Amino acid sequence: MKKSLLALAVLGAFAGAASAQSSVTVYGIVDLGFDNTDSGAPAGSINGIRGGGQNTSRIGFKGTEDLGGGLNAIFQLEATLQSDTGAAFGAPTTTTPTSGPNNGVAAGFGGFNRFATVGLQSKAFGTVNLGRQTSVIKDAYDIVDPYGDGGNIAPISTIFFNGALAGDYGRISNSVKYSTPSFGGFKASAAYGFGEATGDTGASSNYGLGLGYANGPLSVQFGYHNQDRSTAALVQTNENKLMFLGATYNFGVVKLHGAYADTKLENTTAATEVKYRNYLVGVSVPLGAAGNLFASYAVNENRTTNDADAQKASVMYTYDLSKRTNLYTGYSYTSNDDGSRIGLVTAAPVGESASTFTVGIRHKF
Amino acid sequence: MKKSLLALAVLGAFAGAASAQSSVTVYGIVDLGFDNTDSGAPAGSINGIRGGGQNTSRIGFKGTEDLGGGLNAIFQLEATLQSDTGAAFGAPTTTTPTSGPNNGVAAGFGGFNRFATVGLQSKAFGTVNLGRQTSVIKDAYDIVDPYGDGGNIAPISTIFFNGALAGDYGRISNSVKYSTPSFGGFKASAAYGFGEATGDTGASSNYGLGLGYANGPLSVQFGYHNQDRSTAALVQTNENKLMFLGATYNFGVVKLHGAYADTKLENTTAATEVKYRNYLVGVSVPLGAAGNLFASYAVNENRTTNDADAQKASVMYTYDLSKRTNLYTGYSYTSNDDGSRIGLVTAAPVGESASTFTVGIRHKF
Amino acid sequence: MKKSLLALAVLGAFAGAASAQSSVTVYGIVDLGFDNTDSGAPAGSINGIRGGGQNTSRIGFKGTEDLGGGLNAIFQLEATLQSDTGAAFGAPTTTTPTSGPNNGVAAGFGGFNRFATVGLQSKAFGTVNLGRQTSVIKDAYDIVDPYGDGGNIAPISTIFFNGALAGDYGRISNSVKYSTPSFGGFKASAAYGFGEATGDTGASSNYGLGLGYANGPLSVQFGYHNQDRSTAALVQTNENKLMFLGATYNFGVVKLHGAYADTKLENTTAATEVKYRNYLVGVSVPLGAAGNLFASYAVNENRTTNDADAQKASVMYTYDLSKRTNLYTGYSYTSNDDGSRIGLVTAAPVGESASTFTVGIRHKF
Repeated sequence: MKKSLLALAVLGAFAGAASAQSSVTVYGIVDLGFDNTDSGAPAGSINGIRGGGQNTSRIGFKGTEDLGGGLNAIFQLEATLQSDTGAAFGAPTTTTPTSGPNNGVAAGFGGFNRFATVGLQSKAFGTVNLGRQTSVIKDAYDIVDPYGDGGNIAPISTIFFNGALAGDYGRISNSVKYSTPSFGGFKASAAYGFGEATGDTGASSNYGLGLGYANGPLSVQFGYHNQDRSTAALVQTNENKLMFLGATYNFGVVKLHGAYADTKLENTTAATEVKYRNYLVGVSVPLGAAGNLFASYAVNENRTTNDADAQKASVMYTYDLSKRTNLYTGYSYTSNDDGSRIGLVTAAPVGESASTFTVGIRHKF
Repeated sequence: MKKSLLALAVLGAFAGAASAQSSVTVYGIVDLGFDNTDSGAPAGSINGIRGGGQNTSRIGFKGTEDLGGGLNAIFQLEATLQSDTGAAFGAPTTTTPTSGPNNGVAAGFGGFNRFATVGLQSKAFGTVNLGRQTSVIKDAYDIVDPYGDGGNIAPISTIFFNGALAGDYGRISNSVKYSTPSFGGFKASAAYGFGEATGDTGASSNYGLGLGYANGPLSVQFGYHNQDRSTAALVQTNENKLMFLGATYNFGVVKLHGAYADTKLENTTAATEVKYRNYLVGVSVPLGAAGNLFASYAVNENRTTNDADAQKASVMYTYDLSKRTNLYTGYSYTSNDDGSRIGLVTAAPVGESASTFTVGIRHKF
Repeated sequence: MKKSLLALAVLGAFAGAASAQSSVTVYGIVDLGFDNTDSGAPAGSINGIRGGGQNTSRIGFKGTEDLGGGLNAIFQLEATLQSDTGAAFGAPTTTTPTSGPNNGVAAGFGGFNRFATVGLQSKAFGTVNLGRQTSVIKDAYDIVDPYGDGGNIAPISTIFFNGALAGDYGRISNSVKYSTPSFGGFKASAAYGFGEATGDTGASSNYGLGLGYANGPLSVQFGYHNQDRSTAALVQTNENKLMFLGATYNFGVVKLHGAYADTKLENTTAATEVKYRNYLVGVSVPLGAAGNLFASYAVNENRTTNDADAQKASVMYTYDLSKRTNLYTGYSYTSNDDGSRIGLVTAAPVGESASTFTVGIRHKF
């Protein structure tokens, strides 16, 4: 529990304060470190102070209001922070899609690009949120990824779905999402993102379905994401279907991670499709009271084009200075087949390999 | 009183803390719902998750410092939040005016576009604020509007002043505003916004005057706004004069709202003028312990061009889950004469009607 | 100590809370006032409500986490606020440099342009911070400047280093900075900012060295800043060297300020250099319990071009309403030689003089 909420809870005991405990919590992550990244450019690699070695830096505001009867009102506003330069809120960090789920709002768009939601939460009936939020397929793979919700080293958000789709489909604007409570460890979710096209509700809309099981040492997570891509003239050009299935099992001395994903990009006008498959195996190993070792091996298999697969090996060691602050060092290596260019800058020749070495500090507030 | 201030107040009782109680309060509104809006486009209406059905979403920071002797220092920073996509702070949402009150800063401009003020507040002598703030005419009409300070359904901010002026003249940058304390229910205010033109203090400046009476069930509000519009070469092109007069009377079982407004856009170079008049009647009706019904009928009369009037009928029902959170549903219909296009997108033929249906949740934090 | 931290500390006494006290502090400055500025434009001066008369307005988030053993984790996020219009976070306020320390991120760039750091702080071993932060030369001159860390009246940030360099070199992105603890009043710091060019770590990098002594009434501050400027093709065009030496001595009834600076802009390709020297004398005088008078005289000497020097005289009076809030009035006059144009807008003829008169309020929260 955040200190500010603790303060209010303790005060309640002293002061007989109102039953509706509520507060705004300011929270976030600042993650910065030295980084050497080779993105395949002929000129060589880049040394620098870079953010997001372990997790993307962010700042947010959230709160919970007890409405009585087991019902809460909840809100969350969260923005990506480029902590090496301070850039935040301001400008798109990727090209704005002209169709698709984000409807003119790019993945890294200014403002509260990670979360902008309000909703109701009930222990008996589950949670419904409106606004901009994570897709259910991202909710599933973030639980399975050994490195949590991403960063420069993490494999799922960087090479799964051919390396370019996770960002597009990880967060959905203009959306409603419902998650059930946990029934004996089972939990289901469904989301719908409006395309908001004039006169055509289906155009550029997306939906997702998720199912999870978490009980004792075992966690199994399934997620599906379906994205309609239509032109401004409301002609469907693509229907993109992403499926993820992953599991973790915690033996105590080691936690195993495994994941499988399938992607179909169905070009409606040309009646063709592009297909990918992904695999991941990983481990998390606690080392002493404060250390943790993470390792993973992940594959992006291009099922449409030959000799266009990629493989990414990642390893990270973290050392906790407290529950909120840790040091880390990590390394990842992406090997591209002759026809693949995952993790490469535009100037890099196709088929080059990419690597990142990082040593830094992650502080949660 | 916000919980964080309560916490400090209670602590004061325990700890004998300093007499100057002070704090930064993080506050805001996240208002989101399902929305069907028809803006007259031939292709049809738009379904989506949209913000601001009841009130514009926002996030802010404010504080009060007790300086002793009945004097407070106050500050406020408040930004519009497009809660369906998370967009905030970043980019203009309307075209930046090249002259006029906002002096290169559009109504929806990034940053703290709603409030950026510091001032002094005295019970005996009133309040003075510097910076970007609401105009006195907006202060007047927000009190009279049945739906409070605006949103997609609200009539005054959307069709009064020909539907395009409220945003322009609702908030003024580079300004100073003074409000008297209440004398037997009477309160007056005056504001001046600098045009900040080189060598000409009057060019593009604006001023406003307000007078209000609030006592028991009756509230009467008057506001005037005068806007000089000059070119970069300091030639005055327009003097725009907006007047608002409104009143509410609370009978307990029902509250009546009535408003009248007059607009003159005097084109100085052509020696012509464009004139509008507005009327509103509305009711607010408490329904049970948690319900409220709002209804209004408003007119925009174009006094310069024939057959160019518009009428807007609005109705909204709100149901309180707490003091801070409520559900709502609302509907508004705007009927345009053959020569009017209020509430229409560019693609819509002139004279089309517009409508919005919304059902959502508003959470204040 | 901020009230929110006090609240937690007091609560700790009551509740036996955890030993790691931590919190996010929301803080900032809103500084606004009436301002008459003559920037040499033939059309005359500008009257307006303007921010930053005494100090630049800002908003920030920071926190300290006690890690035990005298070690703290610290973070800081701070943004410039244009408090007269509310603009913040959004857009560059100066041209983005195409080379140099800020690497595409202009001095006034959106987001947390002032600070975006995470670091470790130890009483025994000093402080290390990563991210975007002040350069060591700015740390030195902010201590010596009679007006603190800048504003429209302050001399060092506006005419030292030919008036254009302080902003460029005052804050560095992609950087690491280390400061020693104080040893008998002595304190040293070193910073390195990565240029982050592909294949060339030195290109566009910068470094700084600082040494300070503060003991009793005497403070002496030295700072050096070295900036490599290289083209995108990694050809070094410039090596810029800035040196600052200043001191203050507090006699109680008056505090004396003196400063000297030296700038060399070495054009590597043309083998030429441009040189400036700066001098400042100033006083701070407490007047009664709540008043303070500041006065300074500063010179920018152009050692490369004849008849291109400038002089700036500044005076300011502040009156404290509390520890956090004060009123102020100030005046500065910049006299340019025929070949100098410090403080002038583009439209102004070279050699014009510039002046600013301001009366306002500064509120810290």
